[in-house]
Amino acid sequence: MYSSETKIRVRYAETDQMQFVYYGNYAIYFEVGRTEALRKLGITYKSMEANGIMLPVVDYSAKFIKPVYYDEELTIITQIKEMPGIRIKFFYDALNEKKELVCKAETTLVFVNMENNRPCRPTKEFIEVMRKFF
Amino acid sequence: MYSSETKIRVRYAETDQMQFVYYGNYAIYFEVGRTEALRKLGITYKSMEANGIMLPVVDYSAKFIKPVYYDEELTIITQIKEMPGIRIKFFYDALNEKKELVCKAETTLVFVNMENNRPCRPTKEFIEVMRKFF
Amino acid sequence: MYSSETKIRVRYAETDQMQFVYYGNYAIYFEVGRTEALRKLGITYKSMEANGIMLPVVDYSAKFIKPVYYDEELTIITQIKEMPGIRIKFFYDALNEKKELVCKAETTLVFVNMENNRPCRPTKEFIEVMRKFF
Amino acid sequence: MYSSETKIRVRYAETDQMQFVYYGNYAIYFEVGRTEALRKLGITYKSMEANGIMLPVVDYSAKFIKPVYYDEELTIITQIKEMPGIRIKFFYDALNEKKELVCKAETTLVFVNMENNRPCRPTKEFIEVMRKFF
Repeated sequence: MYSSETKIRVRYAETDQMQFVYYGNYAIYFEVGRTEALRKLGITYKSMEANGIMLPVVDYSAKFIKPVYYDEELTIITQIKEMPGIRIKFFYDALNEKKELVCKAETTLVFVNMENNRPCRPTKEFIEVMRKFF
Repeated sequence: MYSSETKIRVRYAETDQMQFVYYGNYAIYFEVGRTEALRKLGITYKSMEANGIMLPVVDYSAKFIKPVYYDEELTIITQIKEMPGIRIKFFYDALNEKKELVCKAETTLVFVNMENNRPCRPTKEFIEVMRKFF
Repeated sequence: MYSSETKIRVRYAETDQMQFVYYGNYAIYFEVGRTEALRKLGITYKSMEANGIMLPVVDYSAKFIKPVYYDEELTIITQIKEMPGIRIKFFYDALNEKKELVCKAETTLVFVNMENNRPCRPTKEFIEVMRKFF
Repeated sequence: MYSSETKIRVRYAETDQMQFVYYGNYAIYFEVGRTEALRKLGITYKSMEANGIMLPVVDYSAKFIKPVYYDEELTIITQIKEMPGIRIKFFYDALNEKKELVCKAETTLVFVNMENNRPCRPTKEFIEVMRKFF
């Protein structure tokens, strides 16, 4: 298993008139969570695209457990629990400053060859880096 | 069962550099879907809040089946399949202009009393309107 | 001069905890305003890009005169006051349901050849359509 | 004069299909810029609201000089050049990783008493902190 932690501070733009973060905006936090999780392994999503592979989300689910307020610093714990194949699944726990679990989520992403728009295997480098954890 | 259809045109702001709609932005389309579904029944979310009840999303899941492109007009079919209690569940099908299913999703929302921040039952008016369908 | 009107309903996602529309989100309304203004002339931004021309914004200014609330239907009046060259300037007035001016803005966009990333003239079709108004 | 620097990494969500940051999203970066500028002085916007004062933006202008790409780390230099009264004006320079100026902007915000919705003077604490710079 691979686990990574990222801090994100809630922006004013991300709240709505209910006075807490809009449910749609958590997806952005999880994007940051998985980007930073990969970056710590020396993998950037940017370089993956430069190599002709994109990684769209095909499945997303989230439970919103407690409201998250403006200016709170969230801890996003991002986990990969299984060796990725054509698909890669990320699990997320978002904690507030009191270390309360505020949101729990999962995303499944698919490696897609940008030339033919078809699912593909990740690069060798990616597989090698991942193998260390599984 | 209650079913409602809404049209939404994809905005440039909603795309990302993958050249289609960012996965986080579908949540906004479903917000519009359920808002318009309720409006057709004479219920506005705005008046609900004016009556001291808010309706946060507690659960959201979505399958992204096909990419959705800038300027496409989506049809959002929003359905309520069970009589709402303290919770109300909406199901969504998003279709593109070729009538292909591009995204399938569900949200669960909870009626919350804004005074004490606790779950509550919907207003009588809301229940009466809903009963016609169940 | 060319003038066009578009209606936009404020989404919940677009408000912030000040209980009205976040200042950054007006830019999206003006994007819709100019897109629809062009569409009425038979020009879609999508087809422009398909022809290798993109149209980034290089200058934007806005005065936020009155708050705009959730679920209000705004009228966006979009105007082109001068014959476009390499640049095209749009002026916007946003009115609320009481016909009060809530925001006044301008954007300047530049036609850019997507092959060499350089400013370019609009297509002949575009120029012909515009000429009728100037 | 008071000047402050903040780093912001561009999120995937903030790009559009032109392959760089959507013009509307810079407003969020400048929100972060001014929030962090004030935080360094011991002032949080959150505590200001808790004291009954909100600070809406009434005027915003921006020049977009160079495109900003996904995953770039921007430096936002936020400056207050005059002693704030009922209004406070922020100036922003956004630099990319090559230290090129990519965007230049200004915002004017007004202190508003949340009880009567009228412009008001900032708190004594705020004025005292600011006076050191002017």
